[in-house]
Amino acid sequence: MKIARFSHQDTIRFGIVDETDVVVLDGDPMFAGFDTTGERIPLADIALLAPVIPRSKVVAVGRNYRAHAEELGNEVPAEPMLFFKPNTSVIGPGDTIVRPRQSQFTSFEGELAVVIGSIAKNVAAERASEVIFGYTIANDVTARDLQKTDGQWARAKGFDTFCPLGPVIETEFDPASATVQTRLNGQTVQDAPLTDMIHSIGDIIAFASAAFTLLPGDVILTGTPSGVGAFVAGDTIEVEIDGLGILRNTARDA
Amino acid sequence: MKIARFSHQDTIRFGIVDETDVVVLDGDPMFAGFDTTGERIPLADIALLAPVIPRSKVVAVGRNYRAHAEELGNEVPAEPMLFFKPNTSVIGPGDTIVRPRQSQFTSFEGELAVVIGSIAKNVAAERASEVIFGYTIANDVTARDLQKTDGQWARAKGFDTFCPLGPVIETEFDPASATVQTRLNGQTVQDAPLTDMIHSIGDIIAFASAAFTLLPGDVILTGTPSGVGAFVAGDTIEVEIDGLGILRNTARDA
Repeated sequence: MKIARFSHQDTIRFGIVDETDVVVLDGDPMFAGFDTTGERIPLADIALLAPVIPRSKVVAVGRNYRAHAEELGNEVPAEPMLFFKPNTSVIGPGDTIVRPRQSQFTSFEGELAVVIGSIAKNVAAERASEVIFGYTIANDVTARDLQKTDGQWARAKGFDTFCPLGPVIETEFDPASATVQTRLNGQTVQDAPLTDMIHSIGDIIAFASAAFTLLPGDVILTGTPSGVGAFVAGDTIEVEIDGLGILRNTARDA
Repeated sequence: MKIARFSHQDTIRFGIVDETDVVVLDGDPMFAGFDTTGERIPLADIALLAPVIPRSKVVAVGRNYRAHAEELGNEVPAEPMLFFKPNTSVIGPGDTIVRPRQSQFTSFEGELAVVIGSIAKNVAAERASEVIFGYTIANDVTARDLQKTDGQWARAKGFDTFCPLGPVIETEFDPASATVQTRLNGQTVQDAPLTDMIHSIGDIIAFASAAFTLLPGDVILTGTPSGVGAFVAGDTIEVEIDGLGILRNTARDA
């Protein structure tokens, strides 16, 4: 089931997406369940929004694909390397990524994103699926120059617009069968099976939830494969994961 | 004016604190203004809670007092060094700090906390006071061993209970006239004038809001002076700032 958050006639609503339409839901299904209003709206008449705005946190994992850690000259960490992106960095599919004046080198990072559905503390890896609401796509946009000079990554990865999410949340996705592919202006720059992750989704959820409580709507970015690189104003970045769709954003300068 | 968030008869409310009572407010004053219900409740009958739970982020500044940077063997950064603590780490006055099993060295860090009152982007330093709702006290609890080994500080500073805030928000506080003092089991361990900060509150708000939008209820921790150290189960940590009161918490093991 593909869950969308969308705007239609100046109202933000949730719905289930099929081939042509969205079937309107009675509220945010994470909290209100999957009852529908019965109303159908053609996809052409709606604007998809970020499918979730975390009320607490976006947790991200650094260096979770070996070839990506190596391309930036880093060791592969023995445990998941966690950092936070603020919810103010979240934008939706089709929204514009703004390259800040403070950075001369902004990079895309295509990633699988996990949307948490339950209050979760000390979750065992093998039970992680019980706290997952669904999956979506993320672009962990990064000011690569500031990431190096700042040391802590909060600012370099926390700028407004630096966390595109979408286009929808798929509740029945199997990460074992999919690849993540990023295209810069149509050219493939990242392409890797999700099984190349060093720390599995279960391990990440276990490790993170042993430190802090995960809340419904929290999002976990699972790391990016090799092939990251710079983008400039006017560029279009597409991140595609089979079964989840395409997250497409263009960039402009501040 | 001292604003409290408190529980009374199983209900969470806001109020204005005077010598003996709390005067109940008609809602969260950050959004609903300062109209009172007229009701007065003796302070002895209420339990103070964290005066704010950030809907977006706790932004914290590392190494913002020279003597503290030096005591940990670090350079003083030329720009504010920002990191995030998740809102799931927030607890209130009197709540218990839980020392996680993952760490062998948990440290207190007494700090002045700024509570943001407006949506704020690209705020000039000299206009920062316009976006400040008030001030409170924070303890930026840190797993010092994990901070070193993890590299990124998200986990070491993000554990549940690692961000005590309170006891109240003072809307008319002047940081130029106050000191921050931390006591471990009654013994003074940190004591410094707030004017020892390297980056001023205005500079921090300007720097942070140039990267990400600050939202009402966001909290900024302004850094800790020298004297940080370990605490263990059973210890009581008090952070006092003249005019803001005392933030007191005890610790236990997980």
